[in-house]
Amino acid sequence: MAPAARRVRIDLAYDGTRFGGWQVQPGRPTVQGVVEEALSRLCGGEVVRIRGAGRTDAGVHARGQVADAWLAIRLDDSALERSLSGLLPADVRPVGVRTVDDAFHARKSAVSKTYRYQLDRRRFGDPFLARFALHHPYPIDRQAIDDALRRLHGTRDWGGFAAAACIVDNRRRTMSAARFEQAGAIASFTFTADGFLTHMVRNLVGTLLEIGRGAMPAGVVDRILEGGDRRLAGPTAKPHGLCLEAVRYPDEPEENETDPSPLRGVL
Amino acid sequence: MAPAARRVRIDLAYDGTRFGGWQVQPGRPTVQGVVEEALSRLCGGEVVRIRGAGRTDAGVHARGQVADAWLAIRLDDSALERSLSGLLPADVRPVGVRTVDDAFHARKSAVSKTYRYQLDRRRFGDPFLARFALHHPYPIDRQAIDDALRRLHGTRDWGGFAAAACIVDNRRRTMSAARFEQAGAIASFTFTADGFLTHMVRNLVGTLLEIGRGAMPAGVVDRILEGGDRRLAGPTAKPHGLCLEAVRYPDEPEENETDPSPLRGVL
Repeated sequence: MAPAARRVRIDLAYDGTRFGGWQVQPGRPTVQGVVEEALSRLCGGEVVRIRGAGRTDAGVHARGQVADAWLAIRLDDSALERSLSGLLPADVRPVGVRTVDDAFHARKSAVSKTYRYQLDRRRFGDPFLARFALHHPYPIDRQAIDDALRRLHGTRDWGGFAAAACIVDNRRRTMSAARFEQAGAIASFTFTADGFLTHMVRNLVGTLLEIGRGAMPAGVVDRILEGGDRRLAGPTAKPHGLCLEAVRYPDEPEENETDPSPLRGVL
Repeated sequence: MAPAARRVRIDLAYDGTRFGGWQVQPGRPTVQGVVEEALSRLCGGEVVRIRGAGRTDAGVHARGQVADAWLAIRLDDSALERSLSGLLPADVRPVGVRTVDDAFHARKSAVSKTYRYQLDRRRFGDPFLARFALHHPYPIDRQAIDDALRRLHGTRDWGGFAAAACIVDNRRRTMSAARFEQAGAIASFTFTADGFLTHMVRNLVGTLLEIGRGAMPAGVVDRILEGGDRRLAGPTAKPHGLCLEAVRYPDEPEENETDPSPLRGVL
């Protein structure tokens, strides 16, 4: 008799360097692809499809990606996590497997997501951070950055910070946290919102770095938000500094948004 | 007129993952090779040879490797460091360039070297540490480890912990620090000595991990030291957990040996 099927939530951390992003696409390894392949092997070769909370871009990392799958499998959650760990490559790691309500949907059930963009402020860069932080030794005007960040809160149309390829109808999202922190040679931007548009965090960071070096006034973010004109924004920051830190669901506590420890991003 | 030659000390940090170790050898990229090539370009194509303080193995990293070179070059130290940074790949970074006394010899002038071996204690491993720490989720008997470490001090013949291929005549070295620390999910062994034999740190770690999991008694290290019998020791620990942290020279202060911050190894 086939085992009863159940909805399973799978939390994942990954080094996105070698992947063409989360979402399955032809010709490049993707995180979704390697996880589906591992699950398929555990399900006797059945095709398995998973749904991710965030479609991270090529080269973007995750510490707290969440996926769900409908699985007909005899292994209990703990055995499933151990087996997944054994089948997945070292750059994609399970960090939690649990059976959830049938209605759970990794993306649609999410209340908020938190992304962190890491900067290496060392003069010539740290070789151990080269994959995980943008080398940015240039001056940063902290006051201008904080001024701009204060303007990036609340429910707004974020279309001016979205990629042209972003084709969602509704570009309104609610940003609940946007902050900059520096600890030693590591600085980071952290954004929490109920959703993000394509390239939105990387476009925000690209613009904030221009503001930080004095090339744009802090008020430019108001004009971009009001006019929706992507051309006013700074360049899209490179993907490798970005990490999907956490996805929050109903009844889960807010993560500690005030912890500025650089360890959070590196360890 | 050719510029006057001078002795230059070059401090380096590197992610050793893709290198065949420090020392130039045919057929594989080496750290010495890429640094010599960059210096050669800065010296108008002249062949440049550098001397490293420690010949790190293939896959071993460095945060504080020291090299020296005899250079006929017009660039001052600061311009030389900037130029080197520009020519070297992102996984090999200069962390200091200074003109030194003609007699300076990166290896022979060194008073001590400090190596650190990092363990990832997470259950399924951290993808961000996969290149820089040995995944070791197994129990560690802290008391047994500390008992063994206390026996690994002072001036001894360390031949029992050396690779068979280690062909130095004198295997006596003085170990001034040998300790184990755990901070969060990261644990590490740190060793400071006036010199190390081939594979010595990795053989020490391999033996200590056996002691830590109860497969060998702590006293085995005495028998290995006294008998010089490599076969009593544990397996050679994998290279990727190892990092040359610092090299100390006369008149330099002792580094802070008591800082257990895992940041030291990762950032």
